[in-house]
Amino acid sequence: ETECVYLFSTNMRLKLPIICFILEIILIILFGVLVQYNEETDAKEWHKKNHSDYENDFYYRYPSFQDVHVMIFIGFGFLMTFLQRYGFSSVGFNFLIAAFSLQWATLMQGFFHGMHGGKIHIGVESMINADFCTGSVLISFGAVLGKTSPVQLLVMALFEVTLFAVNEFILLTLLGTRDAGGSMTIHTFGAYFGLMVTRILYRPNLDKSKHRNSSVYHSDLFAMIGTIYLWMFWPSFNSAITAHGDDQHRTAMNTYYSLAACTLSTYGMSALTAHDGKLDMVHIQNAALAGGVAAGTAGEMMLTPYGSMIVGFLAGIISVLGFKYLSPILEEKLKIQDTCGVHNLHGMPGILGAIVGAVTAAVATADVYGDGMKDVFPDVASGKVDASYQGGIQAASLAVTLGIALLGGLIVGFILKLPVFGAPSDTICYEDNIYWEVSLTVVSESFPTHFQEIPGENSMATSQ
Amino acid sequence: ETECVYLFSTNMRLKLPIICFILEIILIILFGVLVQYNEETDAKEWHKKNHSDYENDFYYRYPSFQDVHVMIFIGFGFLMTFLQRYGFSSVGFNFLIAAFSLQWATLMQGFFHGMHGGKIHIGVESMINADFCTGSVLISFGAVLGKTSPVQLLVMALFEVTLFAVNEFILLTLLGTRDAGGSMTIHTFGAYFGLMVTRILYRPNLDKSKHRNSSVYHSDLFAMIGTIYLWMFWPSFNSAITAHGDDQHRTAMNTYYSLAACTLSTYGMSALTAHDGKLDMVHIQNAALAGGVAAGTAGEMMLTPYGSMIVGFLAGIISVLGFKYLSPILEEKLKIQDTCGVHNLHGMPGILGAIVGAVTAAVATADVYGDGMKDVFPDVASGKVDASYQGGIQAASLAVTLGIALLGGLIVGFILKLPVFGAPSDTICYEDNIYWEVSLTVVSESFPTHFQEIPGENSMATSQ
Amino acid sequence: ETECVYLFSTNMRLKLPIICFILEIILIILFGVLVQYNEETDAKEWHKKNHSDYENDFYYRYPSFQDVHVMIFIGFGFLMTFLQRYGFSSVGFNFLIAAFSLQWATLMQGFFHGMHGGKIHIGVESMINADFCTGSVLISFGAVLGKTSPVQLLVMALFEVTLFAVNEFILLTLLGTRDAGGSMTIHTFGAYFGLMVTRILYRPNLDKSKHRNSSVYHSDLFAMIGTIYLWMFWPSFNSAITAHGDDQHRTAMNTYYSLAACTLSTYGMSALTAHDGKLDMVHIQNAALAGGVAAGTAGEMMLTPYGSMIVGFLAGIISVLGFKYLSPILEEKLKIQDTCGVHNLHGMPGILGAIVGAVTAAVATADVYGDGMKDVFPDVASGKVDASYQGGIQAASLAVTLGIALLGGLIVGFILKLPVFGAPSDTICYEDNIYWEVSLTVVSESFPTHFQEIPGENSMATSQ
Repeated sequence: ETECVYLFSTNMRLKLPIICFILEIILIILFGVLVQYNEETDAKEWHKKNHSDYENDFYYRYPSFQDVHVMIFIGFGFLMTFLQRYGFSSVGFNFLIAAFSLQWATLMQGFFHGMHGGKIHIGVESMINADFCTGSVLISFGAVLGKTSPVQLLVMALFEVTLFAVNEFILLTLLGTRDAGGSMTIHTFGAYFGLMVTRILYRPNLDKSKHRNSSVYHSDLFAMIGTIYLWMFWPSFNSAITAHGDDQHRTAMNTYYSLAACTLSTYGMSALTAHDGKLDMVHIQNAALAGGVAAGTAGEMMLTPYGSMIVGFLAGIISVLGFKYLSPILEEKLKIQDTCGVHNLHGMPGILGAIVGAVTAAVATADVYGDGMKDVFPDVASGKVDASYQGGIQAASLAVTLGIALLGGLIVGFILKLPVFGAPSDTICYEDNIYWEVSLTVVSESFPTHFQEIPGENSMATSQ
Repeated sequence: ETECVYLFSTNMRLKLPIICFILEIILIILFGVLVQYNEETDAKEWHKKNHSDYENDFYYRYPSFQDVHVMIFIGFGFLMTFLQRYGFSSVGFNFLIAAFSLQWATLMQGFFHGMHGGKIHIGVESMINADFCTGSVLISFGAVLGKTSPVQLLVMALFEVTLFAVNEFILLTLLGTRDAGGSMTIHTFGAYFGLMVTRILYRPNLDKSKHRNSSVYHSDLFAMIGTIYLWMFWPSFNSAITAHGDDQHRTAMNTYYSLAACTLSTYGMSALTAHDGKLDMVHIQNAALAGGVAAGTAGEMMLTPYGSMIVGFLAGIISVLGFKYLSPILEEKLKIQDTCGVHNLHGMPGILGAIVGAVTAAVATADVYGDGMKDVFPDVASGKVDASYQGGIQAASLAVTLGIALLGGLIVGFILKLPVFGAPSDTICYEDNIYWEVSLTVVSESFPTHFQEIPGENSMATSQ
Repeated sequence: ETECVYLFSTNMRLKLPIICFILEIILIILFGVLVQYNEETDAKEWHKKNHSDYENDFYYRYPSFQDVHVMIFIGFGFLMTFLQRYGFSSVGFNFLIAAFSLQWATLMQGFFHGMHGGKIHIGVESMINADFCTGSVLISFGAVLGKTSPVQLLVMALFEVTLFAVNEFILLTLLGTRDAGGSMTIHTFGAYFGLMVTRILYRPNLDKSKHRNSSVYHSDLFAMIGTIYLWMFWPSFNSAITAHGDDQHRTAMNTYYSLAACTLSTYGMSALTAHDGKLDMVHIQNAALAGGVAAGTAGEMMLTPYGSMIVGFLAGIISVLGFKYLSPILEEKLKIQDTCGVHNLHGMPGILGAIVGAVTAAVATADVYGDGMKDVFPDVASGKVDASYQGGIQAASLAVTLGIALLGGLIVGFILKLPVFGAPSDTICYEDNIYWEVSLTVVSESFPTHFQEIPGENSMATSQ
């Protein structure tokens, strides 16, 4: 067996330890040189100022942070456990690359967001931003799920986090784009980056692993844990780094209604398009979340509750249609093998969210926003630009994001093709056994005598 | 197969899309006409006032909201996955009807709770109330679980939300009843409404589906996810809309101790009553939660920690006894087929909670409550009524709730009997395959050659 | 069957109800006599003071409390479901002994932490402390998992909570030790107490149950739910009772980075040491959490982000090495049968955390801490001791903790050997069927005719 595993270069005995240790040691050194507590986390600095401990931003951001954290580690991790034999890798590699990405993102975003005397200052807001950036990497992971080694994934994360930070810097800092929930910076970027990577990594003989590229009953239930957590905490995600006060409050509520409306259109569309009027778990697990993605940019704006619902409603429809009709075309014609359908959950809804954001920005008026304009559109409030210009900026930002994502994915895809990274062969994709010691213990056939009288006892642990 | 499915009228190809789209479009229109951001979520209104952004109610309600949200979507959803072949429907229909109910509840509760110049004003508190109302619908769902189509469930939700809002209006606004955690408005109402619906939908031949109306090993573990989340977050549920300050704090703590005591009495009673001294998962999954239900009304009052523990202790005992002895009687004598035993978890403990609330209110004194009286019993503090009268109001409210729930359930039950709604036949209840595309892929018997040397490999994904 | 069960004395019909009811009734009586609302939860007391309701500590502790609560009930509960046939007991006994322990801990900690006029005053902070103490009991549970009856576990909890409170009192009150996240008081104490108990309960013939002392595919996925929740919320755990302001903020952030670094070293070490370069789920499920344990004492100090990462990095390495090389030695040479490997997750990382805390304390300077010194090291700030002395106190506290834990475990271990407590025999360890009614219903072989045409239908509910 060992020979065969070496043949496919998937053995991780040295590769994975080497990359994990090197990356972590580099991170520790860079943190040692560059990173400091900010004014809210440093004992001395915080106590220099005359303020109440209750004013520390911890109390106004940390609950949102934890909700985002759950989305990243439970939400994304379990959403991908739908594959019948890839649950360990889905949760486990999600865990690994997220743990790496959030550290690397702290450095990259800190570098671009502005240093303080050569130092990166960190606190709960940078933690949220690091988790956000990690989310983008995990979206790309969804596109290549089952076809990549953990070493490839770490390399992908290394580059993607860097490019994410560049794109984010261009949008938020240079252009003054508004994108609190990341329809563009997180979802569109992560989706198209991942789609391009999976295009470059195209496997013509992937149908040899087709029998494992599907779910079983309980794997779909595990995936629903991911779905529901993403759905529930998306209001926290979109509002986590908006301005305090009405902004966070409004963003959470807009997202809540967008998701609720999206869920109804998803169920309707799924029954309408799926076989025999039966609902398709793939749609429910994914499309019902599109309303959160699509409210990512405009969620903080005065989108109105019914506006949010319209956005969510459309997002659900687009997403189900994408799963049903577009994904097969992408795979056959464009050779894009998108395991989780991230194009339908993050790609198209992300673009929809960017467009909705651009339109909503363009029609913003002082009459509607009042003094709140300075929180939502500071450049408009300061007179630097007018609302329609802000709308134009938003639209241009979508193009920039798509460009960087696609170009970045192209380059990174080719890097990931290096055989040293240990990608699985076409016949053993979607298979935990490549990278994990999978328990081969079966529930014993030989129970102690006093149990044997119970019929069916041996099959107790499962439903057979 | 298609013929047969049509024969039972369960095909959802047109029915489900039609009702989902119509309901959502109506919701969007009504939201467009009637719903506005409130002063805490509107950019202009919030900034008109001279206050700190940190005073926004978002920071004092949203963490509680998210806990409640988890209870509604994960708690209720997974609690019902105990059925061996109904996990998709349990989580999935829970998801669908909750997403609809929370939107509809926003309108109904907004209408009854008082309009502002013809508009419904919404924010985090209305979101919590909408989730509460949704909880009531999900309790009723538990009673009819496995025997109803998603279209029936949406129709039930439509009417039940409306009646919930009427009952809530009568209690909280007209009578001045105190019921922060909803022992009456949520639990008693939802349980007896659902029990009456399932009575009207009585299926004399339901034993044809009996082999599916039970759990398997892993389905019980999924259900425990629901149980534990409900148990953990119940303190947040009961305290989510109480007055700020000591009230929220006390309510959460009372519920915490009530639940802890309930858990011990549940385990004790389960071992005492179940077969051979073994614990019964049904009791643990359900009765251990009765302490939260029973602390719903009195939780905000000066119930004292040991008082809370007594209430929880009794609730656990009553609930286990109900599962063991009362449920079979209800089914055989009264023809009430209560799938999840909501009578034991929500019905009787809800009534207990109402009674405890009435007694605790009746004995309230200025000596115990001090200036806090105005938060807990505003009508007593203002001198409008005295404590014993408040106790009488509380008791009367239980009767009103039971009346509206039973009458409402009667009418809605008959509406749901219309054959157009696609209820499953008696032989195919508790079966996901009716409404969901269930993966028939089995873990392949034919693995690549290099795996075959491992004995037991083919059975890897389960324990067989 | 009944005879045989009685033979092994595992029948819980009377034992479990008796102990549950007696314990709960004693708790209720003691709460009635001794426990009162504190100033933040009492209606009268709170309203006597002139402060805003928003200043109630509920808003600054309760979100942390809920995260801790999730760790205790979901985290510990599901982490232990990795055993193939012991999932009900893992989650269920975790639930039972936690519900008891948190009540008993309220009394014991209240007694030692200082009474107010003969009364124990409680609020959210005491709830967090009670959950912390419960965590320690659950760590010990991990050491004896699968080999103890629920009655034994309740008896163990009764004594362990008491000794925990004594040790905590000696450290925090008498010695002035700092240990906000409980590297010593919770993890070291719980681990070595449990290890000593399992040593005393040594079973020479435990290999008769060896076939059940392992995981299956889906049981490992359930365990990952526990792992990920523990990992995500550990920042809340360590920061839950630190001083408000920068302290909570910094502690959460230090823990976040410690855990992230720990995850990378865990994956690296697992691939390096496990069979054929494959990752071992046991390592991922456990060692990746060691970074949280190791940051328990120093997390609130000015450990710096890179310092936290170094601590986490080392903790992951130590923990994986422990699982791989030390646990087998402990079992063979020292006769310590440590089911969950708590020595590797809580024992050694706890000691590491204590040492890191002692060193970090010893090097604390006014230059680094400024006026924040009084929050982190009040005795140093007040001039009562100097930093190096504080470091010495910290180190001495580790020795005290180890001593009380080992001596306590020794005594309690012998108490638990009393045959009346219903321990399972060596042949039926790790088996739910002893204490739980396990559903023997299998997915029916006889489906309605219209299903039979679908091949593979009968195996739908599992992946076979």
